Amino acid sequence: MNKLSKIFQPVISTPTEAIGKNREISSKSQKLMIELGLIRPANNGFFTILPLAQRSIEKCTGIVDHYMKKIGAQKISIPHLTSIDLWQQSGRYGTTKSELLTTTDRHGKIYVLGPTYEEAITSLMANIGQPISYRQLPLKVYQIGNKFREEQRPKFGLIRAKEFLMKDSYSFDIDRSSAIRTYEEYVQTYTDLFRTIGTPTKIVQADAGNIGGSLSHEFHVPSEIGDDTLMQCTACSWSTNLEVAGDVSTCPQCQATVKRCKGIEVAHTFLLDDKYSKPLGARFLHANGKPTTLTMGCYGIGISRLIAASIENLSTEREIRWPFVLAPFSVCIIPPKRGSREMESVAHLTDLVYGELTKTQELSDDVVVDDRTGLTIGKRMLEAKRLGYPLIVVIGKDAAGVDGKYELHFTNTETVKRLSFDELLGEIRNEVSSHRYR
Amino acid sequence: MNKLSKIFQPVISTPTEAIGKNREISSKSQKLMIELGLIRPANNGFFTILPLAQRSIEKCTGIVDHYMKKIGAQKISIPHLTSIDLWQQSGRYGTTKSELLTTTDRHGKIYVLGPTYEEAITSLMANIGQPISYRQLPLKVYQIGNKFREEQRPKFGLIRAKEFLMKDSYSFDIDRSSAIRTYEEYVQTYTDLFRTIGTPTKIVQADAGNIGGSLSHEFHVPSEIGDDTLMQCTACSWSTNLEVAGDVSTCPQCQATVKRCKGIEVAHTFLLDDKYSKPLGARFLHANGKPTTLTMGCYGIGISRLIAASIENLSTEREIRWPFVLAPFSVCIIPPKRGSREMESVAHLTDLVYGELTKTQELSDDVVVDDRTGLTIGKRMLEAKRLGYPLIVVIGKDAAGVDGKYELHFTNTETVKRLSFDELLGEIRNEVSSHRYR
Repeated sequence: MNKLSKIFQPVISTPTEAIGKNREISSKSQKLMIELGLIRPANNGFFTILPLAQRSIEKCTGIVDHYMKKIGAQKISIPHLTSIDLWQQSGRYGTTKSELLTTTDRHGKIYVLGPTYEEAITSLMANIGQPISYRQLPLKVYQIGNKFREEQRPKFGLIRAKEFLMKDSYSFDIDRSSAIRTYEEYVQTYTDLFRTIGTPTKIVQADAGNIGGSLSHEFHVPSEIGDDTLMQCTACSWSTNLEVAGDVSTCPQCQATVKRCKGIEVAHTFLLDDKYSKPLGARFLHANGKPTTLTMGCYGIGISRLIAASIENLSTEREIRWPFVLAPFSVCIIPPKRGSREMESVAHLTDLVYGELTKTQELSDDVVVDDRTGLTIGKRMLEAKRLGYPLIVVIGKDAAGVDGKYELHFTNTETVKRLSFDELLGEIRNEVSSHRYR
Repeated sequence: MNKLSKIFQPVISTPTEAIGKNREISSKSQKLMIELGLIRPANNGFFTILPLAQRSIEKCTGIVDHYMKKIGAQKISIPHLTSIDLWQQSGRYGTTKSELLTTTDRHGKIYVLGPTYEEAITSLMANIGQPISYRQLPLKVYQIGNKFREEQRPKFGLIRAKEFLMKDSYSFDIDRSSAIRTYEEYVQTYTDLFRTIGTPTKIVQADAGNIGGSLSHEFHVPSEIGDDTLMQCTACSWSTNLEVAGDVSTCPQCQATVKRCKGIEVAHTFLLDDKYSKPLGARFLHANGKPTTLTMGCYGIGISRLIAASIENLSTEREIRWPFVLAPFSVCIIPPKRGSREMESVAHLTDLVYGELTKTQELSDDVVVDDRTGLTIGKRMLEAKRLGYPLIVVIGKDAAGVDGKYELHFTNTETVKRLSFDELLGEIRNEVSSHRYR
């Protein structure tokens, strides 16, 4: 049984410690995640992910794995350290130097702590002996791992950290038209993935920036603290990052008014063409027998950032709200206070509800009991709402007897239902299956 | 459907490329894993994990997660970069300096690329505001992530790499006797975990070395290329690393003969006492109300090394053998050659067998079809045996008709059975459930 009393969740009672000295570099999500024991600052821009947030991370990587598998992307792991030579060959060392962390081995060889891995994966494709056959293309690979960026000014906790968890994916095609189809497949898959997660996101045309390439889109979570300004036509589908279009007030496509909002970038797609494959010599064996330069795309999702951005977007100043599928636990059960009159008659019902719910595969490890029965139901209810468990079951005195009623709180809609045992199980299972993505 | 033709597995036909220039630093597992497209060398001591090996890694982390959960260890993620100050405070910087990779940020602050995280986790426990209560102890946390060691002489592929995947776990107790109970629980859990995996392992008393502490055990996979010499009494249970006992020929406990073998260390447990908690000030709130120094343990499993060591131990020079639960796919189905007489009458059976097998949760993503039907059954059979899929189903001409027979090859025992459709499904399900650990 998952018991809240056993979960390592060091709650901070002094808000200043959570905010830090520098008010302007802190955000609502950072403050809530630190105060409620989800993350702990290590060094400036570095955070330890604690058990509850780790659960959220694992749920998110599960969703990403699912959608990557759906388009046939294969999971790999590239070493975090890549040779600086590759960064010089691609020409990126000069332009990104100040944002790169490096380390030097005992022989003086310099390695980059990867922020992204275009050079590494392209070099691998260039050095697999026999070039890959056109029959194997399009090839899509991805990895999920920590990335490093020497941010001049890390801020907002996991939203702009120096070390962060990212999914990076790379595609290889025979030519540009095939690569565009692959690119569009990724954009559609990202759209589906973000719909599954449920945090509001906007897709905009983007600047390819330092990664390069000819076509690029970003996915943003709307938020006042976002670094990007998104421009959206009020009439047609035109939407773009201000960096691309400039600060215009009418849509260049239909002349309708443009509305603006701030956004946190959580995903980015790039059609790379031969920007990396040409200098690094990554080729495939064409149907005509000739080694031919591969056409590439790359596609990132900031996993730790997405979780923080979701909290930033959905929460109040005092209470966390999660997208249902990323909550550390979907269901929190609150049994009565120890020594209360209710306790004796309904104590066994906690085991019963927990046992029934966790019988199903989907909820088998997704229910927690707030067993700190020294605290009143009210106090634990407040804490459960603050942490934002989407479904909270209160087992009070009314649960006793044949017509026993349970309280089921739907945290995200702030509604409550009084339900019989069977109704309770039915409602919870319905709610969970409405968020099923497999 | 998982199709072998779509899997990125760059097979190397020139063995010299796999072995490298330096014959003495290569091993059987390294050679096989590179030749068969499971890993690719990136830089000296660094390897990219390709899709088939990644599947093995994910299975292994699933098993580790399962056993960690069983003893109530909670998953977290500590940043890979930890401040060098902590390493100086613990006194470990001086003793391990030459094996540490470091990086420096724009302000001149130096970070260590973590080989282990005793300092980081202890510092976290020392800085969570209110010290943890005795009621929450023992506390067990763990993480799974890449670690870094500046090996002077990386060798044997994933067995001694500069970057490797490791599970590291840390325990916190109120006193030494409680910490010893926790320590013993971990040792028992590791024993169970290695039994589940199925690779032969030996547990020996170990030297606490640079990590420190008062009690230490290692788990080794026996192998001629192992760096450690294990000494085992032929009569009693005495078994120890030569580093601890010295090169004795009789057992100090019962004077019986000692036998020796070489081993590859795949796991290590340490009772740390207050080696880290004292200098870093990690305390808990005792029942008597006083802040008291925590007693710690730490427990590692080298995940990427364990996979390579398993292959080293189980394989022949030419063919990989996997512990059943770590094979990239448990089952490989070989349909008949395209254009062959068999093809027409039995082609549909591949879908049928695949469909039936993957209906069960356990095999849902654990079956692959070698759909390269341009190749003969014999050629694909040789390759499947080389890759070492534990169960290989051959759908030949005898599969046609009412009394159709399938060949089921048990790779690890080198046996074959000719089975009807129902028998085939039954045998495979039996075999899979005999390795079930959940």
